[in-house]
Amino acid sequence: MLMHGRKKRWLVKVEENKEFHTHIGIIKIGNVVGKPYGSPIMTSKDKQCWIFQPVPFDYVHKFRRPTQVLYPKDIGLILMMTGIGPGSRVVEAGTGSGALTSVLAYYVRPNGKIFTYEKREDFFEISSENIAKAKVYDCVVQYNQDVMEGIVEKNVDAVVIDLDTPWLVVQTAKHALKDGGYFVSFSPTFNQIEKTVSKLDEENFHDIQTLECFSREIKTKEGATRPNKFISHHTGYLTFARKTATQLIM
Amino acid sequence: MLMHGRKKRWLVKVEENKEFHTHIGIIKIGNVVGKPYGSPIMTSKDKQCWIFQPVPFDYVHKFRRPTQVLYPKDIGLILMMTGIGPGSRVVEAGTGSGALTSVLAYYVRPNGKIFTYEKREDFFEISSENIAKAKVYDCVVQYNQDVMEGIVEKNVDAVVIDLDTPWLVVQTAKHALKDGGYFVSFSPTFNQIEKTVSKLDEENFHDIQTLECFSREIKTKEGATRPNKFISHHTGYLTFARKTATQLIM
Amino acid sequence: MLMHGRKKRWLVKVEENKEFHTHIGIIKIGNVVGKPYGSPIMTSKDKQCWIFQPVPFDYVHKFRRPTQVLYPKDIGLILMMTGIGPGSRVVEAGTGSGALTSVLAYYVRPNGKIFTYEKREDFFEISSENIAKAKVYDCVVQYNQDVMEGIVEKNVDAVVIDLDTPWLVVQTAKHALKDGGYFVSFSPTFNQIEKTVSKLDEENFHDIQTLECFSREIKTKEGATRPNKFISHHTGYLTFARKTATQLIM
Amino acid sequence: MLMHGRKKRWLVKVEENKEFHTHIGIIKIGNVVGKPYGSPIMTSKDKQCWIFQPVPFDYVHKFRRPTQVLYPKDIGLILMMTGIGPGSRVVEAGTGSGALTSVLAYYVRPNGKIFTYEKREDFFEISSENIAKAKVYDCVVQYNQDVMEGIVEKNVDAVVIDLDTPWLVVQTAKHALKDGGYFVSFSPTFNQIEKTVSKLDEENFHDIQTLECFSREIKTKEGATRPNKFISHHTGYLTFARKTATQLIM
Repeated sequence: MLMHGRKKRWLVKVEENKEFHTHIGIIKIGNVVGKPYGSPIMTSKDKQCWIFQPVPFDYVHKFRRPTQVLYPKDIGLILMMTGIGPGSRVVEAGTGSGALTSVLAYYVRPNGKIFTYEKREDFFEISSENIAKAKVYDCVVQYNQDVMEGIVEKNVDAVVIDLDTPWLVVQTAKHALKDGGYFVSFSPTFNQIEKTVSKLDEENFHDIQTLECFSREIKTKEGATRPNKFISHHTGYLTFARKTATQLIM
Repeated sequence: MLMHGRKKRWLVKVEENKEFHTHIGIIKIGNVVGKPYGSPIMTSKDKQCWIFQPVPFDYVHKFRRPTQVLYPKDIGLILMMTGIGPGSRVVEAGTGSGALTSVLAYYVRPNGKIFTYEKREDFFEISSENIAKAKVYDCVVQYNQDVMEGIVEKNVDAVVIDLDTPWLVVQTAKHALKDGGYFVSFSPTFNQIEKTVSKLDEENFHDIQTLECFSREIKTKEGATRPNKFISHHTGYLTFARKTATQLIM
Repeated sequence: MLMHGRKKRWLVKVEENKEFHTHIGIIKIGNVVGKPYGSPIMTSKDKQCWIFQPVPFDYVHKFRRPTQVLYPKDIGLILMMTGIGPGSRVVEAGTGSGALTSVLAYYVRPNGKIFTYEKREDFFEISSENIAKAKVYDCVVQYNQDVMEGIVEKNVDAVVIDLDTPWLVVQTAKHALKDGGYFVSFSPTFNQIEKTVSKLDEENFHDIQTLECFSREIKTKEGATRPNKFISHHTGYLTFARKTATQLIM
Repeated sequence: MLMHGRKKRWLVKVEENKEFHTHIGIIKIGNVVGKPYGSPIMTSKDKQCWIFQPVPFDYVHKFRRPTQVLYPKDIGLILMMTGIGPGSRVVEAGTGSGALTSVLAYYVRPNGKIFTYEKREDFFEISSENIAKAKVYDCVVQYNQDVMEGIVEKNVDAVVIDLDTPWLVVQTAKHALKDGGYFVSFSPTFNQIEKTVSKLDEENFHDIQTLECFSREIKTKEGATRPNKFISHHTGYLTFARKTATQLIM
């Protein structure tokens, strides 16, 4: 990843003798080979850039995005609330741009798996490329298939839904989940969460809760520290619930 | 973990024939052995509880807490912004209750490490117990030592500071970090972030930013969906920065 | 109004020789007569209090409250968005505790009027007392009557609804409003605003918008300035709309 | 005021035979004479507009703005917290665009007064025009003078400061205020509020508090209700304090 200032970031593949053209000049990106991350590099117009290793956050922002994506604040909360982590087996639908897929895959390494369903062929292909770029393909299984037609996996740790009608997937998700496993859905409107929570209730899910997460940047400057003008976008609400076992312990 | 309703949660160690006493009656916790997570269980007063596997979120809330702890929303953001994940080597100071230590250790499994410094002996001991309970001891190295006296590790991926004076640790952290590695600090006041950012600037860190994160619960009930009365506590601000290499790429 | 510290406030009627008993001692409130506002006074236990003139804010917080009340941030926004001010004629339903009534009456002085409808007799009586205490009775007309049975007034500047079913009052409000006049409703749930906005649309109201307002206190202390732990309650959403005239200007 | 859709608003002076040119066509604004507010009118391009009476909110947004202005949410909170209302005598500095001046003047009608100080001549002139447009000139006294050189008025109900260095005006404001009167200042940065609060403390002001106010629009559509993507700008913090009398009541 190449950075100029704080806001301008590019994900560039480094190849020998390659030049990278930007509005602030040409960068001899080939010279980066063998240099440590964090190094400065000058453009042909004498502007300073920096070479950094990309983090999950960068994939989320830099992928070709056919769909709206979740923000770091939201994905971070999914990890923490569900315990998706090294070794987890997770079903995701839909794949969309593959941004969430890639980030989840990054965190279930080295022996977990993300099984991701996408019915649209164009999204399936774009996300394929994106997941490859993020170098997490070993931990991903992609289906070009509508999740509504069923989930192949059983006994998974979590099912993460980023579709318009999450309530229609509750039953399917229940079959795929292990007892105690997490259902997670992400929806921008109130009406969606109302329908989803109602369905989760009906299907005996427990510990159902819906959260909205905001973040705000603080502009720090000695003697003039203030919040940024904007608070983060409303991206959506996260609904969490756990599958219950049917048999009462006596 | 034993749950009653949405809010009452206990972390109980399951042993054969053990009984667990609560204000809603006695629970024959020994009977849980061999039953699936997500199972319901009745108390002697005929109240229903549920058995679930604890997630990182539960450790944060259930640990003996000598100090204020970070919230899931904050820890989630640390993961996402820094890429701390499977295999990462991270320095933390101070250890406090060990809650953050345990959650970070959970995410760097199976072959990453958290090196955590705590100068107070009482905190060192409490956190030791807590980290053991969270079953992540394999990924933790604990020091009963003031981080200000130096960090033993070199070339680490991130240094996470939860101390009153993060600006005093910037230089020490810089020596321990690999090029491009992340400095993270958590501070409740504006004055702390001002001093820390100023010091990071002086030490040539790049991509410095400070974020505040909020979360809000939505009370979902058909026909009466509304935000919870309270928005999450202000816990503090997170400051992120990356170490730069000194040599310009030519 | 008597204050102790920042948070303890009493609305006390001053009478000669009167003593006022509190948990921090007895206050010779009779001695206040003829003294300037802002004066300090000691209790029998030697605690310092202050005498201040109450502002609308204080009425909102200090009234006997049979019902939830709007907060200063919300009422301030109602004033600004509708132009309710000196001389305005406003219909309100229901009266509730009379807190909103009193504040609106304060701002329409000296020759505006608040016409307020309340069907419950107990609320009607409590609010009567409260409005008298706030000394704005000259600007208030109270009805112990359900607003659903009709509004007597015509051509009013605004109709302000604080009832569970605002959508049922839209038509009645329309008849009472002047052309261009404001409909305002206050509702805690999303479902209420959805129904209300839908009805306003149907009745050709224009410039319909719904706002939520938050406020947060900053704890200011040299070298340790930070936001308060809590952000204000979610009290509810404010919906605004303007009545349109039917005839097209040619 | 002329509206097209929800967002496009013009403040137009109506004169006989006048035509008003916009990007959505020409409007025969002269024909509006004698028609009720709330009436629809068509442009030459057959687009529908509406005629409404402007409210204070509209002045704030529509004035020529040489400076940043306060938002409705902020001004509403000033009114509610200080009781500035019909009959109040208020000092303001600086005048800036005259937007806050005009709104305050609107609320102190018919016999209150806003005394406003502005040292820059260009701002003084622009604000003069703006205040005249808002038709509240009877309630405003304007000084082209630096408030730091002193306030002519005595015994005022409130002093409202919108300057970069509010702490430098605390003493001057104290002399102008009546006992129990309100000091209000508006500042974007933390450093400003820290200095101001510290000075207010030193000068024995009481009931000092600093608030930040946010507002968020809800996009209401049947079956798809959701918060707007953006939460309101951080405009600044409001600091409130009351002047105390020196003599103890015995």
